[in-house]
Amino acid sequence: MSSLSEQSAVTVLGLGPMGQALASAFLNAGVRTTVWNRTPGKDGALTARGAISAQSAEEAVAASELVVVCVVNYDASDAILRRDAVTEALQGRTVVNLTADTPDRARDTAAWAAEHGIRYLDGAIMTPTITIGTPNAVFIHSGPEALFQEHRPVLDALGGTHTHLGEDIGRAAAYDIALLDIFWTAMTGYAHALAVARAEGISAQELAPFAKGIGAVLSLSIEQDAKEVDSGRYSGEGNPITSAASSMAHIVHASEAHGIDAGVMRAAEGLARRVIGLGHGTDGFIRIVDILGRR
Amino acid sequence: MSSLSEQSAVTVLGLGPMGQALASAFLNAGVRTTVWNRTPGKDGALTARGAISAQSAEEAVAASELVVVCVVNYDASDAILRRDAVTEALQGRTVVNLTADTPDRARDTAAWAAEHGIRYLDGAIMTPTITIGTPNAVFIHSGPEALFQEHRPVLDALGGTHTHLGEDIGRAAAYDIALLDIFWTAMTGYAHALAVARAEGISAQELAPFAKGIGAVLSLSIEQDAKEVDSGRYSGEGNPITSAASSMAHIVHASEAHGIDAGVMRAAEGLARRVIGLGHGTDGFIRIVDILGRR
Ligand SMILES: NC(=O)c1ccc[n+]([C@@H]2O[C@H](COP(=O)([O-])OP(=O)(O)OC[C@H]3O[C@@H](n4cnc5c(N)ncnc54)[C@H](OP(=O)(O)O)[C@@H]3O)[C@@H](O)[C@H]2O)c1
Ligand SMILES: NC(=O)c1ccc[n+]([C@@H]2O[C@H](COP(=O)([O-])OP(=O)(O)OC[C@H]3O[C@@H](n4cnc5c(N)ncnc54)[C@H](OP(=O)(O)O)[C@@H]3O)[C@@H](O)[C@H]2O)c1
Repeated sequence: MSSLSEQSAVTVLGLGPMGQALASAFLNAGVRTTVWNRTPGKDGALTARGAISAQSAEEAVAASELVVVCVVNYDASDAILRRDAVTEALQGRTVVNLTADTPDRARDTAAWAAEHGIRYLDGAIMTPTITIGTPNAVFIHSGPEALFQEHRPVLDALGGTHTHLGEDIGRAAAYDIALLDIFWTAMTGYAHALAVARAEGISAQELAPFAKGIGAVLSLSIEQDAKEVDSGRYSGEGNPITSAASSMAHIVHASEAHGIDAGVMRAAEGLARRVIGLGHGTDGFIRIVDILGRR
Repeated sequence: MSSLSEQSAVTVLGLGPMGQALASAFLNAGVRTTVWNRTPGKDGALTARGAISAQSAEEAVAASELVVVCVVNYDASDAILRRDAVTEALQGRTVVNLTADTPDRARDTAAWAAEHGIRYLDGAIMTPTITIGTPNAVFIHSGPEALFQEHRPVLDALGGTHTHLGEDIGRAAAYDIALLDIFWTAMTGYAHALAVARAEGISAQELAPFAKGIGAVLSLSIEQDAKEVDSGRYSGEGNPITSAASSMAHIVHASEAHGIDAGVMRAAEGLARRVIGLGHGTDGFIRIVDILGRR
């Protein structure tokens, strides 16, 4: 890492939990790290470990060729980057925006960057703060591949895996949205399951080990179903959507019998019932992709 | 297994994909296996391997001390078991009902069994047919512990892990409902993610490896959140529910911008917004358990 430390420098804009984790990992790897946050006073632990505290965003971006942005969303990142002083200071430099938002916001930011001579990569972080700097971190990137390769040595200081998904600048955000969709929907299911379990006298910690086991079953289904979705050939063999709908109805019933809202499962069951109603009851549950994505 | 084969016998009622998998595992373990299914003609592969084909459900249950039932739901299991001839033939025998349904149906069946001198255990299977007979199978059971222990040697022929969850006969079904709640909600999220990904030009097989990675993040959250839910102390540190709601809004937006129904995520986001509205915006997302389960 010593060769990295001699030549490399990075600016981190945004010191929420994730921005702090990123800056901390850069510091650990010996990268010269300049930090800035809208609300001052969040850089104490970082400057104590050698980070340079900038007084303004323009000062911060002037300090490094590579600027990593990680704030709540693109309204926030626009508020920081699209001020004249900052935009000017960014000219010729590279922005890697690790803020989460939608693909259209990433594309819009890339267009703005191109207009102002700013080199731009868009990325997303798929794992929690505690993984940053460890092999478990997962980063995805999109935009010009050569630009990604140029900055990869510094980005690698963040640990984990960095995957370049393609030149389409919106691609990382699209993956991010899709993956967060799975995560937050699953977490909603978990929360609902805990509410039902509680009503049945089962504690969260009693259910948790089995809930983790469901993760293994999910992994299996994720892989098998992906092939079916891409091929458009849905085999319900072993587990037809009629069987899924029957399970879902049980869940709705058990939930509502305890006075627990089952709106999410009702909506999910409705998708399954529509697939059955369209005559595809012997297909697998994953066929709901086609009615969701109907064109 | 040879000592098992000399003394043990089982009847399997129901030869859907799961009933067939169970009967097949019993046969592999050398258990004398009698099978029956409402619609005839599903036992060909099993009788070829030594299963005894019964002509009626009453004949089937008369053949073994242990009767395993695995049909679509308890309407189906009632239709089989609660006919006089079958009920009489069951007297003094043990029924292990591995059919999935709600806890109240399990309790109702236990009451019926007690009335008719039938020994009764209720269970559920948490893994797909291909796991049956392998170490990956997961079975949960509830009801009289001594009865479970008595039949455990034969049940072990099904492979995997068998957990006795307690004497409350509804407990296995309650776990089952809760775990299926997680599974089907997560699968709905996956399907939705695939629809959004497709609209963004990302194939299911491109997304799948990352989707599996999300499973690892879920495992982590499942464990941490369980502690918070049981203690009633919700720390949003590192990931407050306001941040979750912001992600969810991005997902809804990206989905609907492609004309893709986002009803499930809208419902999920609504739960998060209500928690924030109640003044708990700095808590973690899992606090939605409390509004779902409000009493
Ligand atoms: N935390 C995680 O585990 C995790 C995991 C994966 C991805 N991410 C993503 O990483 C990004 C950052 O997340 P986070 O956890 O650090 O916390 P966050 O709450 O999403 O973002 C907080 C940061 O955004 C800044 N901010 C908000 N509005 C702003 C505005 N109008 N102008 C300038 N700055 C503004 C905050 O500055 P102030 O201090 O001035 O408010 C703070 O630096 C998000 O896109 C998140 O989705 C987070
Ligand atoms: N498949 C899996 O991967 C899996 C995993 C875990 C748990 N389970 C659970 O295992 C149970 C059985 O599932 P399965 O996959 O074998 O398929 P299934 O489609 O859920 O059930 C089919 C079985 O139910 C019987 N049945 C339906 N209605 C009936 C009625 N009114 N009277 C008598 N029998 C009736 C069918 O008989 P006919 O042939 O005469 O229609 C057939 O034997 C379900 O509760 C399911 O949730 C399945």
